[in-house]
Amino acid sequence: MTIAGFEPTEFEQRCARAQAQMVEQGLDALLLTTEADVRYFTGFLTRFWESPTRPWFVILPPFGKPVAVIPSAGEALMATCWVSEIRTWPAPDLNDDGVSLLAGTLQELVGERGRIGLPMGHETHLRMPLGDFFRLQDMLGPRSWVDATPITRGLQMVKSDAEIAIIERACGIGGLAFEGIAERLEPGVPLSTVFRDFQRLLLAAGADWVPYLAGGAGPFGYHDVISPASDRPLAAGDVIMLDTGAVVSGYFCDFDRNWAIGAPSARLQDAYRVLVDATDAGLAAATIGAEAADVFHAMAKVITKFADPGAVGRLGHGLGMRLTEWPSLIAEDHTLLEAGMVITLEPAVMVGPSTMLVLEENIAIEVDGPRLLTPRAPSSLPILRAY
Amino acid sequence: MTIAGFEPTEFEQRCARAQAQMVEQGLDALLLTTEADVRYFTGFLTRFWESPTRPWFVILPPFGKPVAVIPSAGEALMATCWVSEIRTWPAPDLNDDGVSLLAGTLQELVGERGRIGLPMGHETHLRMPLGDFFRLQDMLGPRSWVDATPITRGLQMVKSDAEIAIIERACGIGGLAFEGIAERLEPGVPLSTVFRDFQRLLLAAGADWVPYLAGGAGPFGYHDVISPASDRPLAAGDVIMLDTGAVVSGYFCDFDRNWAIGAPSARLQDAYRVLVDATDAGLAAATIGAEAADVFHAMAKVITKFADPGAVGRLGHGLGMRLTEWPSLIAEDHTLLEAGMVITLEPAVMVGPSTMLVLEENIAIEVDGPRLLTPRAPSSLPILRAY
Repeated sequence: MTIAGFEPTEFEQRCARAQAQMVEQGLDALLLTTEADVRYFTGFLTRFWESPTRPWFVILPPFGKPVAVIPSAGEALMATCWVSEIRTWPAPDLNDDGVSLLAGTLQELVGERGRIGLPMGHETHLRMPLGDFFRLQDMLGPRSWVDATPITRGLQMVKSDAEIAIIERACGIGGLAFEGIAERLEPGVPLSTVFRDFQRLLLAAGADWVPYLAGGAGPFGYHDVISPASDRPLAAGDVIMLDTGAVVSGYFCDFDRNWAIGAPSARLQDAYRVLVDATDAGLAAATIGAEAADVFHAMAKVITKFADPGAVGRLGHGLGMRLTEWPSLIAEDHTLLEAGMVITLEPAVMVGPSTMLVLEENIAIEVDGPRLLTPRAPSSLPILRAY
Repeated sequence: MTIAGFEPTEFEQRCARAQAQMVEQGLDALLLTTEADVRYFTGFLTRFWESPTRPWFVILPPFGKPVAVIPSAGEALMATCWVSEIRTWPAPDLNDDGVSLLAGTLQELVGERGRIGLPMGHETHLRMPLGDFFRLQDMLGPRSWVDATPITRGLQMVKSDAEIAIIERACGIGGLAFEGIAERLEPGVPLSTVFRDFQRLLLAAGADWVPYLAGGAGPFGYHDVISPASDRPLAAGDVIMLDTGAVVSGYFCDFDRNWAIGAPSARLQDAYRVLVDATDAGLAAATIGAEAADVFHAMAKVITKFADPGAVGRLGHGLGMRLTEWPSLIAEDHTLLEAGMVITLEPAVMVGPSTMLVLEENIAIEVDGPRLLTPRAPSSLPILRAY
């Protein structure tokens, strides 16, 4: 019986690795509240997190399986997951929404002077009402709270072969959808229609769902890459980019593709070429033992031959159960690359005063060097007919 | 020029209403960190929140437009929104990810003994690293933190006509997709395929994206409604349910539909009829001035004629920029219904020892009584041919 697509040993190993660090650091419990953290240790995979009404708690003790303290609506699914025990309450409870139940469970597991680990660092948040957390702290008295981000981040950053295989499937599905959408990109089609059609193609190709889609179009590149699609029709002379985070079994791909509608300017073609070269430089640098910063610098060096160094931002990031994860390809991130990490290479250049071009690939760090999980983008800007 | 599909006056009024309460409560600033809270006051609509890497901050002062303190990647989009000022930093910054910039901005806006409002109550969370929040508290010294949930919740619970019109569009799109999927439900089709096809139909019908989909199938109802779709093929004798949260312009619909594959048992038909009757009872009770609890009791009374009272959970909830919002249709929720509220009526009954049937509609509370936003479900369980 698999759990969320994995053999149970996957979760056994994840817990054991966290527990080894917990024992080393003297942590008596690890408290998890977010979708990815809860799923990582238990296999609890559901889209129900979209509802902000209910908090969900999982406690990893230093030995044994995790203990779930959750709304009763999740009991049936959690019973199929990697947990030793499930305690439930009928959420929402306006007077006490799981806080006493959680406090009581932690009191049993953690001695009066014990230490509770909780992810509190970069890229984390606490998914429960802040007022309830303060009440929980009061109830737990002298027990201390320790930032457990290094444990959760460090483990999740290095994927198992089974995880990488799923991400590669997601990338393949993205590739099929990109092939399909290219046939539909022509002058007159509103960008909002392209966004809908592209999501449909991702689903048809096998994505479970499409939590993320970004993109843009314009004659000199795109203005920003986070705005919703407008109803502006594509026009001859545009370059269009689509960037997807499609999900398979709870794991993301995150890559984009660009196309020119009709013959692009030499400047656009040059800019695209710079992105391809920067990707090559990133691939050459992304070896075991290199720092995230080394990969950044290798790519930035190529980009700054073409563009203002001041405009160089993050050039990639980790990828997995979240669209973006640790590490960041920036100058300040000295994370050492290890076999099993999955990262994006995402060079961007400014083409006009406020327009840009971005190209993104996903790679796995392996013993023999990085391996592309995405079917790689063409080496020159693809040109679609503009009739 | 509209902002996220609204006239700018929409945001002016939202801010003014919050500010009237802030002045009354002596709040010098309202700090917002979540997607819905930020969007509600500024119109900042983007799927980029899917990336957990960067925090985003908006501060509403007691007078004037909001001030945005955000990663520079969001500047172009935020410049089109309802803000007076945008301060940015190049996130992610591993040493100081916007904390000093946010603290400095709050120090300018809030006197040394001033009061900062922050949503900390039920259904809220703080979307920034907890460690950074503790640093922010230190930097802001003697300023006090006040739970602002009653302000943000109270405002967002009562929708404008423009908001209700968007939710109604989302409901219409859901209705079209339900019509389409019914034609594809037949023995042998895996539930996972149904989930993908249904999402594609929602997009084809005009949804911008599909953040939420749940459902289940089985001969005596479904086991739980939060599990991912399995690859189990539909079989003659199954009842199948699909429940969607599709989004248009950032607003959700949230309703479900049921179908029997071949002739259902009398018990299933009776159970479905109970859900329809409970919905009627909810509609009759959902009038201005009634409590959320009154609507609950009206529906529960119908349900407990058929099913164990102990199994009656939440029977509906608010709906809007989030899949689920305040209030809850439970016995403890004494929220008074007001014109402009949008809620779901979601009766459920246990059919077997561990299987259930759920039916959900979306309604707007209006002066003349509740108005269905969803094309209402058939009054008896629809039966599809099982060949």
